[in-house]
Amino acid sequence: MKFQVLVLGTNAALPLKGKITSAQILNADDNLYLLDCGEGTQMKIEQYRIKRNRIKAVFISHLHGDHCYGLPGLLTSLSHHHRKTPLHIFGPAGIRSFVEVVLECSNAYLGFEIHIHETDTTQHSKIYEDQHIEVFTIPLLHRVPTCGYLIRQRIRGRNLKEDAIREYHLTIPQIKQAKKGEDIQTATGIIPNAQLTKEPQKPRSYAYCTDTVYHPEMIPLIKDVDVLYHETTYLDDLESEAAARMHSTISQAARIAAAANAGRLLAGHFSGRYADVRVFEHAGKALFANILAAEEGLVVDI
Amino acid sequence: MKFQVLVLGTNAALPLKGKITSAQILNADDNLYLLDCGEGTQMKIEQYRIKRNRIKAVFISHLHGDHCYGLPGLLTSLSHHHRKTPLHIFGPAGIRSFVEVVLECSNAYLGFEIHIHETDTTQHSKIYEDQHIEVFTIPLLHRVPTCGYLIRQRIRGRNLKEDAIREYHLTIPQIKQAKKGEDIQTATGIIPNAQLTKEPQKPRSYAYCTDTVYHPEMIPLIKDVDVLYHETTYLDDLESEAAARMHSTISQAARIAAAANAGRLLAGHFSGRYADVRVFEHAGKALFANILAAEEGLVVDI
Repeated sequence: MKFQVLVLGTNAALPLKGKITSAQILNADDNLYLLDCGEGTQMKIEQYRIKRNRIKAVFISHLHGDHCYGLPGLLTSLSHHHRKTPLHIFGPAGIRSFVEVVLECSNAYLGFEIHIHETDTTQHSKIYEDQHIEVFTIPLLHRVPTCGYLIRQRIRGRNLKEDAIREYHLTIPQIKQAKKGEDIQTATGIIPNAQLTKEPQKPRSYAYCTDTVYHPEMIPLIKDVDVLYHETTYLDDLESEAAARMHSTISQAARIAAAANAGRLLAGHFSGRYADVRVFEHAGKALFANILAAEEGLVVDI
Repeated sequence: MKFQVLVLGTNAALPLKGKITSAQILNADDNLYLLDCGEGTQMKIEQYRIKRNRIKAVFISHLHGDHCYGLPGLLTSLSHHHRKTPLHIFGPAGIRSFVEVVLECSNAYLGFEIHIHETDTTQHSKIYEDQHIEVFTIPLLHRVPTCGYLIRQRIRGRNLKEDAIREYHLTIPQIKQAKKGEDIQTATGIIPNAQLTKEPQKPRSYAYCTDTVYHPEMIPLIKDVDVLYHETTYLDDLESEAAARMHSTISQAARIAAAANAGRLLAGHFSGRYADVRVFEHAGKALFANILAAEEGLVVDI
């Protein structure tokens, strides 16, 4: 089962040299979810040939422009692309008036429904689920109400042993029963479920945490996450600037990843002053070995 | 004196293949004016190394997203680039709440003043002047209140005859007098102004007319304009679609240019269905010979 993230943009504050601000696509078995939507996100969606009408929901971390100014243009372009299926949009209080006022000022009539959900950024709670994923808010600490999102795969039923299924020539209804863990009655006797299925794969999880000052309160909420995206606007020499602007340094992000026992740290939301963001991988590895600097176009299997 | 336009984007409705929607920079002696501001305008401003802090005013034709969704991001990025000088923003009624609500929702504090002027799109009137240009609205007819902009150079004083100025060793105050048309008193006698100056160059003018259905009422307002930018969303075979969506075809734009005795027609705002926009030049030339299809990066001396 596919569970991966594609980085569309990771610049802090403003686009630079063709790179945009925050946006990522989470892909769960070809069901797509957009995390943040900086200006130019729709151009990157076109550039990377993302099937835009497969985007089921948008999750906005906070309403600073570098995380949401691309949303109105994405919505009107989805409409130009004949989208008919509803779209769910999650974000902190204010996202409703942002979207609605912009669409109203620009006289934009969308050919599909949008459902805007204002999230309580102070609570850790489940805000979304469908067949493929469930999504929980992660309270963060920034200059405006902000939350991260923990996205967990939903694994339905046990995993089939393909060889056994073929051997016993099971029907579709029987296969469905087996996935639920039931024994199967056939003409020749009962097949114990253990012969047909095995324990399902552990659901994988991704935590998207931007923007935030160093905030250890998030650690228990993201415990054992497979991949943690954590903002690292600055290297450690600018720790006081990070604190003043309520951003994090690479060491702070690495400390969070280590304490949460994350599988991997995806670092991003880099200040424009860093020409080569690989420096973040080196700078953090004493505290947490498995760091990857997010760059546009990067695909990470979770 | 430099008077030229740089095309930043000319796509109708939505960005495609790295090309953005409407935006142009008018350059009057290195004083810059932005005409429309589709999503991604700030990226093009960076790409073309435009001195963004020289932008004195922004003129928005109408509030459809493909003409204004780049404005909030441009403003916040100007602030990140330490702009201190005020910026004037002109556009139809609604532009104030568009800008103010977006900035407020996103908690954006600009480091410079903005002065928002809501223009009466039904009137032809002067809305702006500085030392370099004067700007008049041109009522257009579209699905929402829309106006074009006529931008005329301001030529101050007569043109100096450089040789004569050198020959007579005039002082700066004397040169200023001569530019005003006065004769100059020197120790050896009076120099008639005609020996020092000549008639100034005729002020050049540019008309930016997008979006609009075929609207001949604009013709007297743009009479003898040097360059007319007129939207040509479609070729002639889609004339009924143009009418239904209140856009123009290439022949309609060419007819306007011919009737207005324009020096040149810059065609733009092309539907995404046209891969090679040169077809517009060929399609219109029977009605108006001097047509140029606007493409990103094109600089037109006016």
